[in-house]
Amino acid sequence: MPSRVEKLTAISVQQKIDYFLFTAAPSVKYFSGYFFYFEYGISPFHFVPAALFVKPSYASTLIIADNELQQEQHLLPGILVSHYLSYGYESPTQPAQQFLQQLFAALDTHNSGTTRVGIEPSSFPKLLADALIQRYTGIEFVDISGEIQQLRAIKDSDEIDCIKKAAHLCDIGQATVLQHSKAGLSELELFNIVCTAIESSVGERVPLMCDLGSGIRTAGGGGMPGNKIIESGDLVLSDFTACLNGYWGDSCNTIVIDSATTEQKEIFTRIKETLQMGIDAIRPGVRALDIDKLMRSHAGNFPHHGGHGVGIQYHEEPRIVPYNEMILLPNMVIALEPAIYRENFGIRLEHLVVVTENGCEIITQFQHRFER
Amino acid sequence: MPSRVEKLTAISVQQKIDYFLFTAAPSVKYFSGYFFYFEYGISPFHFVPAALFVKPSYASTLIIADNELQQEQHLLPGILVSHYLSYGYESPTQPAQQFLQQLFAALDTHNSGTTRVGIEPSSFPKLLADALIQRYTGIEFVDISGEIQQLRAIKDSDEIDCIKKAAHLCDIGQATVLQHSKAGLSELELFNIVCTAIESSVGERVPLMCDLGSGIRTAGGGGMPGNKIIESGDLVLSDFTACLNGYWGDSCNTIVIDSATTEQKEIFTRIKETLQMGIDAIRPGVRALDIDKLMRSHAGNFPHHGGHGVGIQYHEEPRIVPYNEMILLPNMVIALEPAIYRENFGIRLEHLVVVTENGCEIITQFQHRFER
Repeated sequence: MPSRVEKLTAISVQQKIDYFLFTAAPSVKYFSGYFFYFEYGISPFHFVPAALFVKPSYASTLIIADNELQQEQHLLPGILVSHYLSYGYESPTQPAQQFLQQLFAALDTHNSGTTRVGIEPSSFPKLLADALIQRYTGIEFVDISGEIQQLRAIKDSDEIDCIKKAAHLCDIGQATVLQHSKAGLSELELFNIVCTAIESSVGERVPLMCDLGSGIRTAGGGGMPGNKIIESGDLVLSDFTACLNGYWGDSCNTIVIDSATTEQKEIFTRIKETLQMGIDAIRPGVRALDIDKLMRSHAGNFPHHGGHGVGIQYHEEPRIVPYNEMILLPNMVIALEPAIYRENFGIRLEHLVVVTENGCEIITQFQHRFER
Repeated sequence: MPSRVEKLTAISVQQKIDYFLFTAAPSVKYFSGYFFYFEYGISPFHFVPAALFVKPSYASTLIIADNELQQEQHLLPGILVSHYLSYGYESPTQPAQQFLQQLFAALDTHNSGTTRVGIEPSSFPKLLADALIQRYTGIEFVDISGEIQQLRAIKDSDEIDCIKKAAHLCDIGQATVLQHSKAGLSELELFNIVCTAIESSVGERVPLMCDLGSGIRTAGGGGMPGNKIIESGDLVLSDFTACLNGYWGDSCNTIVIDSATTEQKEIFTRIKETLQMGIDAIRPGVRALDIDKLMRSHAGNFPHHGGHGVGIQYHEEPRIVPYNEMILLPNMVIALEPAIYRENFGIRLEHLVVVTENGCEIITQFQHRFER
């Protein structure tokens, strides 16, 4: 299997591209393994958190801020690393200048006459484009965003391993909700019990996107946890999307606190059937929209996607939605999440699967359970 | 007091700027009040989370993704809002195109002939620059990054109120450490107890940057919490930097679990004195480097800044560092954090202050306590 950097060779030949320069965090992660921990937002010490120069079958250099050294543990083989001075207390911070200095050192021998550079313009800073144009007369930029998105839809085996590990953190989250949720606890208290379980399992902080809503809030899909107190008879909808080393897992369960109504039990059963129908239908050659249509035919319509690809972003191709004719292929990773929302409650169930040669393998391991 | 948008008038006159277009999240927050919640990283549904068009004394339009509507509660008066279609399940996501459509609607009547636009090029997407150049012949871009950074160093009274609220969350964090830390607890368990207390106090998730290290880890400044078990005789260093509605607070304490050595007690006292000396010296007219030098004269040198400005970013001007001749002025908000690190332990104490007419006011309310 070719390395991900080598997958760029075909694009470079087809588009006559001399080299690639990635500044979008997902692409840097995809081609280099470098993950920028994003929970603190934008760093005042960075120009970009990282950039990756790739000349297929020649060189790949990752340029990162020198205050992010601890993140190098996940780098893919063959990636050279160049650090730029970011934080310092004895001189002014000049991240853009420091970054450009390292970048030019990597690029200088690769520019002469007309040089075509593959970039993703929506996340390519104007400052960087201007600096390159000024230094390298004849440089031309080629938008390769679409090609990269297509590449990323089909996962390599090491990526599937990463996603499985992230999915395991979601499993831990769902088990913790089953074990610890009870009347009298606030949503935020339950959320932090979940965080403790997930984070302790890997010994580090874990970015965790989630819906964790109870009672009437489940009618709107859940929402972020708040101070609402969980009450007897409430449903609790827990959608956990955890990020480990730059790959996401995804999962959703809905449980009842104490006892459910007959209608709620029936709807839970219907959604569980719907999810199983969707999973059973996933195989290479099927179109994304067919899976979506099948699930809506059993659950009725719901106001969001039937599912989506998962990887370095928590929502990517293949989108399981009514318009998407994309053909499913082996090694796509897909979350399915059918739902029914009523006036006073909602039930959504989600599993994460990887498409195999003949069907799919479920990679979230938890069991959907409504009553305990 | 002029509104923050009106502060741009002087820059527009001086640099002959027709209008401003902000895409950096800190500037969008500063001039519009709009805060993008960043804990989930980059959204696959966004081109930029938000952009702000400002023509001083004429119009200010915020362009945001339509899946971020709930964040409009903090908008400043006089800001018009334009939404672009972001998430959808019935048609492909095209955030860049959708964004540009809304932006052009706001800009079309403000471009004719040579139009000079103030931007921050390090965070201005190339795609956006290219689209503007193509649509508006004669457009010119002016880098106003430096001016914006200077403006932001001096806070308005509503900003100081926001920072005080964030500082209060840090106070809650420090009180929680004092109350709950004990031998046998892991750093991550303690961290999540702190999160529960902070988040429950406002009823929502709170981005929390922190050092929370124990024992030998305090010698290196703390670090992110991990699975290390807190032991009797350990120091616990807790640096909490919480973000509420886009403004940060900052604080640090160091405590001992059970009993401290004589050397540790002496060093705690020395750092507490150092911090007080720094606070006592802060007043308008003093240079940033004088505060830094004074603290190092009492504590000895330490391998980081003596302090830094705090606001929409957790580290901004005035940096309290050896090279910085910036003159302190009223309404600057400054964190001071002197430290002493030894081979086996480290002690750092931090307070957040606002510069007043005659000195400064401490806005973190917790007391630094070493032994309980």
